[in-house]
Formats: sequence, C-alpha cells, structure tokens
Amino acid sequence: MDGSRNTAILLLSCPDRKGLVAGVANFIFQNNGNIIHADQHTDMERLIFFQRVEWELRGFRIPREEIADAFRPLAESFDITWDLRFSDDVCRTAIFVSKAEHCIYDLLLRQRIGELKTTIPLIVSNHADLRPIGDIFGIPFQCYDVNGSTQAVAEHQILERLEKDSIDCMVLARYMRILSREFVSKYPNKIINIHHSFLPAFAGSRPYHRAYDRGVKIIGATAHYVTAELDEGPIIQQDVVRVSHRDSVEDLIVKGRDLEKVVLARAVKLHLSNRILVYGNKTVVFD
Amino acid sequence: MDGSRNTAILLLSCPDRKGLVAGVANFIFQNNGNIIHADQHTDMERLIFFQRVEWELRGFRIPREEIADAFRPLAESFDITWDLRFSDDVCRTAIFVSKAEHCIYDLLLRQRIGELKTTIPLIVSNHADLRPIGDIFGIPFQCYDVNGSTQAVAEHQILERLEKDSIDCMVLARYMRILSREFVSKYPNKIINIHHSFLPAFAGSRPYHRAYDRGVKIIGATAHYVTAELDEGPIIQQDVVRVSHRDSVEDLIVKGRDLEKVVLARAVKLHLSNRILVYGNKTVVFD
Amino acid sequence: MDGSRNTAILLLSCPDRKGLVAGVANFIFQNNGNIIHADQHTDMERLIFFQRVEWELRGFRIPREEIADAFRPLAESFDITWDLRFSDDVCRTAIFVSKAEHCIYDLLLRQRIGELKTTIPLIVSNHADLRPIGDIFGIPFQCYDVNGSTQAVAEHQILERLEKDSIDCMVLARYMRILSREFVSKYPNKIINIHHSFLPAFAGSRPYHRAYDRGVKIIGATAHYVTAELDEGPIIQQDVVRVSHRDSVEDLIVKGRDLEKVVLARAVKLHLSNRILVYGNKTVVFD
Amino acid sequence: MDGSRNTAILLLSCPDRKGLVAGVANFIFQNNGNIIHADQHTDMERLIFFQRVEWELRGFRIPREEIADAFRPLAESFDITWDLRFSDDVCRTAIFVSKAEHCIYDLLLRQRIGELKTTIPLIVSNHADLRPIGDIFGIPFQCYDVNGSTQAVAEHQILERLEKDSIDCMVLARYMRILSREFVSKYPNKIINIHHSFLPAFAGSRPYHRAYDRGVKIIGATAHYVTAELDEGPIIQQDVVRVSHRDSVEDLIVKGRDLEKVVLARAVKLHLSNRILVYGNKTVVFD
Repeated sequence: MDGSRNTAILLLSCPDRKGLVAGVANFIFQNNGNIIHADQHTDMERLIFFQRVEWELRGFRIPREEIADAFRPLAESFDITWDLRFSDDVCRTAIFVSKAEHCIYDLLLRQRIGELKTTIPLIVSNHADLRPIGDIFGIPFQCYDVNGSTQAVAEHQILERLEKDSIDCMVLARYMRILSREFVSKYPNKIINIHHSFLPAFAGSRPYHRAYDRGVKIIGATAHYVTAELDEGPIIQQDVVRVSHRDSVEDLIVKGRDLEKVVLARAVKLHLSNRILVYGNKTVVFD
Repeated sequence: MDGSRNTAILLLSCPDRKGLVAGVANFIFQNNGNIIHADQHTDMERLIFFQRVEWELRGFRIPREEIADAFRPLAESFDITWDLRFSDDVCRTAIFVSKAEHCIYDLLLRQRIGELKTTIPLIVSNHADLRPIGDIFGIPFQCYDVNGSTQAVAEHQILERLEKDSIDCMVLARYMRILSREFVSKYPNKIINIHHSFLPAFAGSRPYHRAYDRGVKIIGATAHYVTAELDEGPIIQQDVVRVSHRDSVEDLIVKGRDLEKVVLARAVKLHLSNRILVYGNKTVVFD
Repeated sequence: MDGSRNTAILLLSCPDRKGLVAGVANFIFQNNGNIIHADQHTDMERLIFFQRVEWELRGFRIPREEIADAFRPLAESFDITWDLRFSDDVCRTAIFVSKAEHCIYDLLLRQRIGELKTTIPLIVSNHADLRPIGDIFGIPFQCYDVNGSTQAVAEHQILERLEKDSIDCMVLARYMRILSREFVSKYPNKIINIHHSFLPAFAGSRPYHRAYDRGVKIIGATAHYVTAELDEGPIIQQDVVRVSHRDSVEDLIVKGRDLEKVVLARAVKLHLSNRILVYGNKTVVFD
Repeated sequence: MDGSRNTAILLLSCPDRKGLVAGVANFIFQNNGNIIHADQHTDMERLIFFQRVEWELRGFRIPREEIADAFRPLAESFDITWDLRFSDDVCRTAIFVSKAEHCIYDLLLRQRIGELKTTIPLIVSNHADLRPIGDIFGIPFQCYDVNGSTQAVAEHQILERLEKDSIDCMVLARYMRILSREFVSKYPNKIINIHHSFLPAFAGSRPYHRAYDRGVKIIGATAHYVTAELDEGPIIQQDVVRVSHRDSVEDLIVKGRDLEKVVLARAVKLHLSNRILVYGNKTVVFD
C-alpha cells in the first residue's frame, strides 16, 4: 500500500437543487481529480439530495489538508451538510461484548484478514468471560460493573477510556446492557448494534423466544445505529433465514447466530467505508 | 386420472405416548395399505405428537367409507384428534377480493393449469371492479355492500351463499374488509388471508407505508388462517424481498405484489393438500 | 399523465477519463436541467466508464428533438457510446410463446396494471394453444410453422410482421424454438429470453430434469439477452429457490414456474426503463 | 449430560415394500422404545424407501450393544441397508486446510460452543501458514508436502496418521489439493468438501474468476461428499448470494467466504447428526 491509490470521499446531503451534481463534479474536475465512484439519491417526497463521491488524491491539485476549506464555499452556497473522509483514515473501533463470543470472533477475524479496515484497540465488557479473546488477539479487554446502581459510574469510566483510546466508533457485538441516553448522545451514528430479530418485529428482550411463540416461519437480524430509543435507531442492514415447526427456541438461537454475525459485519463494513448517510430515522446506504 | 392412485390421508395430533407410531403403522399395514408419505413431529415442550400419514387406497382392505369407523377405536385409546381425508376429495373454495387483481388472477391461473386442486364456484367482493375476471374464468361473481351499517346483513347473505355453494374454504385475496368474529367462528382454520407485511411487524393497515417510514431493508408477506384477532392467526407461510433507500412506497407495493401472490398460493396449496395442522396459535406444516 | 414529469435518459459508456462526470453534468446543468437520477460504474479492470443519467425535460432549454445534436460534440470529444431515450417513449414489444402460459399471462397482467410500461401489439407462437390469451387481452396472435425445414421461411415472415408492427423488443416467454443466428443478429440486445436454470448450470434442454438428476439443493432461472450462442448471452437477472430430495421433477417444474415469471418480469422492466447497458458479454444494471 | 437422554438412530434404505414402516415401528415399540424423531422418503421413480428413526435408549429393553443383532433379522427380511448409531457416539474429525483460515476458524468456534458435536484431534495441511490456529485451539497441526511427485508418499503418511488418530470423517475446509482416487475410496461418504461455486456451475478451479467473467448475478457455494470425480460428489448443501456489476472478483471472494463458512458448517452438522443418506450420486437429508 504505497498511498498512491488513496482517495477522498465526500458524503453530502442538502435540499434538492439544480446544479448540485455539476457543482460537485466541477469542483473535483477543475482541480484535476478523477472520480472513481459516485452514487446519489433523491428522496422525492422530502426533496432531499444525497451523494457519495470518491476521487483519487493522486494528481488532485488541492493538498488533502486544504480540501475542506476549498469545498466550504460551494457547500455553503447549496446549503450542503457534508463530511470529508480519506480512504487511508483508519477508524478506531471499540467492541462491546457480554458473554456471547460469535460476533466478536467474527469481527476480529475479518479485521485480521483485512476485510474490515479498522484498528480495534479496546474490548469493553460487563463480564469477564471473553477475556481470553482479548489475549488471543492482543487487544486490551476492559471489564466494567454496569449493574443498575453502578451503571452511571461505569459509563463514566468507559467514556474516559474511549476518550483515552481515541475511539471513533463502537460495535455492540451482542452487548446485553442498555446504554444510557447520555452515553448514546455523545456518539450519534457512531454506535452500531445487532438486534437478534427482524425489526420492528420483536424489539426488546428475548426475541427468539417470542418468535417461537408466535410461530413465525422466518427469523431475522437487524444492525442499526443506537439511539436513545431502544431498538428504534436507523436500520443499516437486515437479513433473514427460514425456520419451521421443527425448530426449537434453541434451534432459532443457533440459526440466528449466523445471521447476527453476517448482518453485523456487513453493517460495520459499510460504516467503515463511509457508505452510510443517516437522515431522519433512516439510512441511505451507497453500497 | 383413473382413481387407481387415490390415497387416504390421516392428520392427527395427541399427547405423546409410546406405541403411537407403531399403532398407526400397524393399522395401515394389517389392512394391506402401502404408506407413500409419512411425516411426524413432536413438540418437545408441550409433549404433543403430530403426524401426517398417507397411504394408497388400492389394495387397502377397508372400504374408504368404513375407514373412519375402523380407525376410531385406536384413536380413542390414544386420545387422538384426527382428520381423515382422501386425495380425490376436491375442496370447494370461494375467493374474496376487493379491487386488487393480482392475487386472484394468480390463484385462478394456478387452478386452471392443475397446480391448485380445487373447485372455485364463487368469487365474493365488496366492489364490482373485478367482475370481468369472473366472466373470463366463468365463475359467479357476487358483490355485497359491506360498509359499516350493512356488514351484518351482508355477512348473513354471504354465509347463506357459502352454504348454498357448499364452500369448504375461503381465500381472502387482498380482501380489504375485516370479517366479523361471528363469521370467522363458523369457519375455523378454513379462511386463509394474505397480509402484506412480515408479521408480526406492521400488523393492521398500510403496512407498506409504515415499512417505508421505518426504513426497513427487507419487506415481507404473510399467509395465515383468519381468527377473531386481526392479523394474529396461525402463520402458514412467509417470504421476504430486499428493498433499499431507492424504493418509494410505490416500489414497495410493486415488489410486495410478487410476494403476496407466491406466499398466498403456497399457503393455499398446502391447505388443499392437507399438509397443515393447527395447534394453539401455530401451524405444523408437513411439506 | 400530463407530460410535465417527462424525463430524458442518457445511457453512455466510454474509456474512463477525468472530466467525464463533470462534462455530462455541465451539459445538463448549463441547459437548466434538473438531474433526478444518476448512477455510474467504472470497470476498474478494463477502465471503462458507464453512466445512466436522467433529468427532467420541463425547463430544459434544448427542445427534446435537438438534444441529441447538442450532446454529440461532447460525446465525440470523450469517445462516448451513447443512447438517448425519453421516459414517454413507449417501447413496442412482441411476446413469443409456445405452450406454457404462465410467463405470458404474468407479463400481460403486469402490463395492464401499469407495472410494465410498453405496448404489446403482437404475440408470436409456434403453436395455436395459447390463442385464447390473445383474445382475452385483445392482442393479435400469430402462429407460424417453424419446424426444421420451414424455419427459414417462418422467420422471414416473422421478421416482416415485426417490421410491420414496428416492434422494438421481443420477449421469449418460454418460447421453445431456437432463433437463427440471422434473426438474432437483426435485434442485438433487444430479445430477452428466460432460461429455466441457474446459468451457466444446465444450459440447453431439460434443465429441471438434469437438476433433479444431479441432486442440486437449489434451482434457478435466468433472464438474458439472446445472442447467437444458445444460453450464452449477457445475463440480466437471476433468482433461485431451495429444493430438497422430496421434490420430484414435476415439483421442480412447478417451483421453477414462479421463478421464471418473476425473473423474466424484472428483466423486462429493467429493459423498458432503460436501465441496462451491455458490454462484452455482461450487463451493467442500474437499478 | 447424564446420558439419560441418549438415543439410538437407525438410517435405512431398501426397496419400497408394504409393512416396512410398521415393521420398524413395531421393533421399537415392542421393545418399549419411545420414538422421538422419524422421517422417511420414497423415491417414487426408483421405488427406494429411506428412513431415519430415532428413539430413546432409556427404558428400551434391548441393551445398546445388542440392538444391531436384534434388528438384523428384520433388516434381512426386507433387504434393508442400514446403519445404527447412538447420539452419544462422538465422531472424530480431521480438518484439512491450505492457506485460507475462515472455514477452519468457523468450524473450530462452532465446535467449541457445542454447535458441532465432534472431537477434532487433527489438522492436516499442505502449508505451514495456519499452524497458529492449531496452537490456539490446542489441536495437533500436521503439515505434509503433497506436491506432484510427493503426493503418493504424503497421502500414505496422512492415511497412517488418520488411522492412528481413529479419524471417522474429514472436512476439507478450503484444502486446495485434489485427493487421489485411492485415498478417497478408503473413506466413502466420509469426506466433506466445500466448493466455492454453485455446482454444477464452475466446477474446477478459479470459480469466482469464471463467475465474474460470465457476469452472473448470483454466486454460490456447495458442500458435497468427495468422490473420485472432482466436484461431482453427492451434494449436501448449497446456498447463494446476490452480486452485481459493482462487484470485482475480490468482492466475490469476500462475499463467497461467508457462504463457504455457513454452507460447510451446515453440511458438517447434518453429517455429524446422522441426517444424511447417500444413494446413487444424491443425498437424502432429513433435517
């Protein structure tokens, strides 16, 4: 990786107006940029325009540290909300777990073989059970007591640790505690959770048991950004698998594990590659 | 079809006990029956046993009209709830519609090419719009005024007509009226509805609009038996399709139509081939 | 439909070069066009750029009949291969059938409820069986004798008829004859076929029988453009369904029918909405 | 696990005859056995009957070591081919790998959390790369040089090692060498391979590259028993995932990894739970 293929990525949204696409394209072209990916979407109901555009830094006339300033006038003239990222920015991710190991193992293995481009300097847990995973992968494993009365104190300690480790985003890999409204509000659209049902069906606890009781013929999993409302955040990814009367609750749990792993990994990958725009309580996913 | 391949089908359920499988198998074997399909299931939680067994009538020593009497002693000794059917029994089906034609067309075409083995002597509607379909397929089309105040009277008329036409089962093919508790109670597990969502998500009205608003990444359809509780009956079949931020409500409706057709047709086919056992609010589907 | 929402659609491909996106966007913006959909793709291996861009005609300064001429200089400077279409252009489609009715019925019903925006002035067949469908939908049904020795003559007659009816595209809806190389060459990327397997598996005849013999656990259907090489044309759409040892060949045929209908309809819809670019033997599908 | 829930499992196949089901059911019932699972299938074309029946050992009057002898007379009278297994038999599995770690990691993690009931005393490889996995999981990792000229010698050594470790079955977890006909013939229906395509499409090498070149819209993975004919053995499981023109070969490889893991794990689980019957070149899977 010699850096010669590095790219800049603009994620933007704004009220739909003529000239937007041309404006952005010209900004890039007139500075000698080569667009390698562009995708856009217009919400025709709310008349909001969304775009993701990625171009090569090699040969681009504006130094990367000056691109934001150079783009700002155009952004202001179109009332654009925007994020500028670079493909060699490496997000620093903390993984939160409780007792289930399948999701965290899956994420760590994908990270190790280069499928997830991120640094993972921290594992947070409310149980000591998965400490050996930290050892195997050489990642600090921090255990906090987050029971009822201690939650506020523990969250404060976690926040300090996140700060110290310069954490950009968090993945709740079957972390079985509810984060407080205050905690969540500090990291908007930066905390990804995997819920083990096809939301909005079976939000809340024990979704596999409730799916079993209802006699559904398909179960699902949902990755979403965490908001203050439990299981109500913007959905990033969902997938399902067929079940039958033969499947016990335990079978649903086993089948569900495979869904949880894949759905969570896909959502994290989309987040890390700057392909998600959140608006209202929904996502635009440029995949 | 010379009748030489006709079969008898037993659908049974009872408290799980040793000797059940042998008892039923012996009843058939000792009367020279050849079992061509058998499937069973035990709900290990409630300890209920379910079985579907199908055997050839050719060579069977008990005349078909005496099989039920011959089986009764065994059934009583094991406390079996049972249904005896014959493969050449042809169920008489009424299709209920409102304005959408896709499901009824799909059902009628499948019936015509022999995929659905049933007679369809009646179409019931609360709108005149689809009358031409009745003409094309040569099926009486009866229109009833089921608005609020007239519903009780209309349902009474419909019930009389169902009686007169010896209707065994009903398919609500996007019929947009809610049948009364009294009506439903007369045909338990005989009325199949298609709901245009992945139940229990988006039960009730306007599921595609609500799916759009929630920003789900997958939509579904659910075929279920109608009970007094709206969209709460035993689920027979479900299927899903992937959607994205690009899909408008109208797109969801279009994609959903394909799901509705296939899910409903599969459920009706399973019902007609005597492959569904209902218990509690769930189904055992021997497919 | 008052025409006020009509759009122009450019489908283009060319060697990848800087300034392409800006060039096209400027062409539209400087003539006061409002882009409502744009999608692009770069084949990074062959360095070919593809784009679909759609903008509103309302307010656009160039009259629609002059847009092509106005765009040509830009196209030539970038060596662009392009097609200009308008959303109110209505493609004239001929449907080819043999004896199976499920695909043609499905297409005609979708066309009637507005899901497929096309005129269907002609049904071509090598059997008389489906003539009643022509009557029901009011579409001329032309039957040709295309057995071995008569194929050349028949194809000549069909071509004349296509010409007379100003047919733009053809859909082979389970048409069971192979069109000659000459015939196909007259309509490149204008003839869509549905093959009843997951290509390239089971190309050629009797795919369901061969899938059954091989013991596959999933079967598929493939919609593709017809080329001179049987079942080798560019793939537009595929879908699959799970099967098991319980499924006989007849069951595969029944399950496959549902796939064939949906896959073919989706492919036709993509074609009619100008969302497919063919290059080499592959498709770019901007859905 | 106190052994009180242990079961006996009969897997049998034979020419279809009356009295088979009753014969087997009586054998179990008359010895006071409680059937907890039974599934059967008749290949109506070849008239072969297949059955899997599982009953509790607790209370069964025949000691487990005498069941086979007790069943033999019945088996001979019906010309039954059969296998008797016990739920507490633990298969000893060797995993074969080359350089890719995703499948073996997945299998080892599933084994560790109890999803795959097997002992894994040996990892065989033709490369040293994955030796650390053996260390992490505490499993001997044996590396053999199986290049052309050394293959015969190496296979001989591997066979000796398999014998020494009392290996019952083998899983080729992306093992990239072809086993010799002689090797395979020693373990019929005991070696499971994962092929990274939707067989029979893209049998042989580099399936993702060929899928990319063909422009398919769906890719797949296939788990099958290894026979002397490469990629031609009985198929156990298949699954697929959708791809598009946006996916490079590298993307197909990444997406395919998820398929490979899940399809292989499901196949191994079915094998270990004695749910697969092989006949001809096909499988009956009682899941």
